[in-house]
Amino acid sequence: MAEKLCMTVMTGSIDRLTGMAILAGGAVGMDMEVEIFLQLWGVYAFKKDVIKQNMNLNEFQEKGGEVIKRMQELNLPMWYDILKEAKESGKVKIYACSTAASIWDVKTEDLEMVDDIIGAGEWVEKSKDAAITWFI
Amino acid sequence: MAEKLCMTVMTGSIDRLTGMAILAGGAVGMDMEVEIFLQLWGVYAFKKDVIKQNMNLNEFQEKGGEVIKRMQELNLPMWYDILKEAKESGKVKIYACSTAASIWDVKTEDLEMVDDIIGAGEWVEKSKDAAITWFI
Amino acid sequence: MAEKLCMTVMTGSIDRLTGMAILAGGAVGMDMEVEIFLQLWGVYAFKKDVIKQNMNLNEFQEKGGEVIKRMQELNLPMWYDILKEAKESGKVKIYACSTAASIWDVKTEDLEMVDDIIGAGEWVEKSKDAAITWFI
Repeated sequence: MAEKLCMTVMTGSIDRLTGMAILAGGAVGMDMEVEIFLQLWGVYAFKKDVIKQNMNLNEFQEKGGEVIKRMQELNLPMWYDILKEAKESGKVKIYACSTAASIWDVKTEDLEMVDDIIGAGEWVEKSKDAAITWFI
Repeated sequence: MAEKLCMTVMTGSIDRLTGMAILAGGAVGMDMEVEIFLQLWGVYAFKKDVIKQNMNLNEFQEKGGEVIKRMQELNLPMWYDILKEAKESGKVKIYACSTAASIWDVKTEDLEMVDDIIGAGEWVEKSKDAAITWFI
Repeated sequence: MAEKLCMTVMTGSIDRLTGMAILAGGAVGMDMEVEIFLQLWGVYAFKKDVIKQNMNLNEFQEKGGEVIKRMQELNLPMWYDILKEAKESGKVKIYACSTAASIWDVKTEDLEMVDDIIGAGEWVEKSKDAAITWFI
């Protein structure tokens, strides 16, 4: 069985989501499996009506314009496009936390790229077998 | 020996603390041991005179009211009640970082649910044996 | 081979960087190897022209003055001095993410304490062998 990277994604901010997506892409490139569990703001950021509109930063809000301008100059894709490409490998599974899905009143079909809605216990079970675990 | 989840909790914000408490509860439900190490804002958030008053969010402050209203509609308990219930299993140990305890000038008895004050080296030693490690 | 702590550092805020540096110091004290990978704001915070000027906090900005005054009373060093001391052991390696280095248009010599610039895939490979992995 391939080694696994498990990321718990609480954040809904595009700086941290970009870091997450780049690491997911890196892991897929190294032939690892990637599993992602979205909690509160993570579920919010994957909502179909939010994902492309959301420009929230976790830190240095005042530097957001500069960073995004520079990313465009370098032709860097947005975090969801990096993640979508990684997902096309078939090696990335994305789960939404059932509690967070209740809070936002969403089902799988309301969320972009999400495969299933699961509980925290099930997620902990999946994470136990990972070579790398990160809380984003 | 049961498998272990070790969470380093730097945050004092209730969105991230809620994610942490739900994961602690999930791990206990899967019969894992849980160990938690509070750093700077984590120690602050567990102070007896702060824990129930603190409404700080790490992200999307403007959405706080909406989320908390929705949590009340769904009868979701607050993060410290989720954690308290997990702790009643006897499987959760909570430590405060000695440096952070000095900064806030607190002892174990000034903190809610905290079992002991330990140093970072001791915490790293504990984390080495964990199946899952997260920095919250 | 010594056990290893791998920290992915997205943050550029001094509260989270202080937690990171204290944990790096703790790990070195326990004879572990430490590897650090700087992403977006992490690279920014290690820039030679930023590292000592940066006073950004991730949370509780309004409490920053109180915490820093208290750290000075206790003679606690700043995060970069804690990390510099840990690095003198020879057990700490610091890498900057190549994407983030492009965004900030920096080379190794523009960054304090950074040993090399590497890609996300290489970092994932390094992290797979770690006893502890944290995303800061």
